[in-house]
Amino acid sequence: MDKKRLKEQMAFCEEIDKEKMVGRQTWLTGAVRKENDAEHAWHMVVMTILLSEYANEDIDVLRTVTMLLIHDLVEIYAGDTYAYDEEGKKTQKLREQAAADRLFQMLPPDQEAGFRKIWEEFEAENTPESHFARTMDNLQPMMLNAATDGKSWAERGIHLSQILGRNKNTAKGSKVLWEYAKENFLQPNLDKGRIVEDVHFDEN
Amino acid sequence: MDKKRLKEQMAFCEEIDKEKMVGRQTWLTGAVRKENDAEHAWHMVVMTILLSEYANEDIDVLRTVTMLLIHDLVEIYAGDTYAYDEEGKKTQKLREQAAADRLFQMLPPDQEAGFRKIWEEFEAENTPESHFARTMDNLQPMMLNAATDGKSWAERGIHLSQILGRNKNTAKGSKVLWEYAKENFLQPNLDKGRIVEDVHFDEN
Repeated sequence: MDKKRLKEQMAFCEEIDKEKMVGRQTWLTGAVRKENDAEHAWHMVVMTILLSEYANEDIDVLRTVTMLLIHDLVEIYAGDTYAYDEEGKKTQKLREQAAADRLFQMLPPDQEAGFRKIWEEFEAENTPESHFARTMDNLQPMMLNAATDGKSWAERGIHLSQILGRNKNTAKGSKVLWEYAKENFLQPNLDKGRIVEDVHFDEN
Repeated sequence: MDKKRLKEQMAFCEEIDKEKMVGRQTWLTGAVRKENDAEHAWHMVVMTILLSEYANEDIDVLRTVTMLLIHDLVEIYAGDTYAYDEEGKKTQKLREQAAADRLFQMLPPDQEAGFRKIWEEFEAENTPESHFARTMDNLQPMMLNAATDGKSWAERGIHLSQILGRNKNTAKGSKVLWEYAKENFLQPNLDKGRIVEDVHFDEN
């Protein structure tokens, strides 16, 4: 038994509890409060298990799940950067790299390297798993926004062009799910004026 | 494309958002607020990925992860039953069976059967995966209780015999992790009087 190894692993497990305090901009169904990063990760991972059949390419589900479970951990130190916060996004990469250095080095070297690699794969979006993980990361908040009558979009005056920019790679992971999202999450909120239609939707 | 299938899956994905509102008795590190079921599941699943090497028997990690992700979903309708609530535990099984019927039937038949089976496996504790999942389900709140100076134990006057009863199967999933928990989570809180030592600890 390598006591040092287990102590490091448990210290990491305790540290990541802080992810539950990292707030996001998405309202939960019922709109009583907004979601946090840990809840968001849990939700996407259940969705991945149920929806992996719609991935464009075959994916390793456990690898995708691991990616989604840990991809926001860096926000414990770097904070959440809202999808439409253009100022925050300028420094996001540097802040998150520094956070990854600090957090993942708590783990034993083999697990540090493993988590680092899988986090970088998510950021690089260059594998079937990272494509699908990105699809989930975009689909889940759209689902909740639609379920709360577009509250998060409307209160910030979000434009369709912003949503389409944010979702430029959503179809890369799953064409079926992107089509579903357009029809069931975006179109009704365009019809109701909860999303500002600054570009034609049909062309996208 | 089977539109009915996807609609059912997405309706389920939206419904389970409610798990984020099911409160637990465990305080988060920092003790600002208590945890909810979705956060608890996320935390255990990351821990499973990092700690599966300590399982007594070889486990299928994805199956264990799926089990932990969904095992508390029934509490959306049945509510959380605190580990030391003896009254609530009398009706727990019936309430949770009814909740499972109601929730899982939202899914397409194949996924309904799959989730039902894996949930029943967790309840039956008769496989290596369910043994390890149970270990995680006990270890994670002990870790948080210890990290908050035994607050959850002390404020309810929890006795060691109750904790040992609750943990009678924790070693079944991982002897190493149960030994770690005894030494690092329980013993310090016995020493400080945060857990009432009504039985001798060494004999267990």
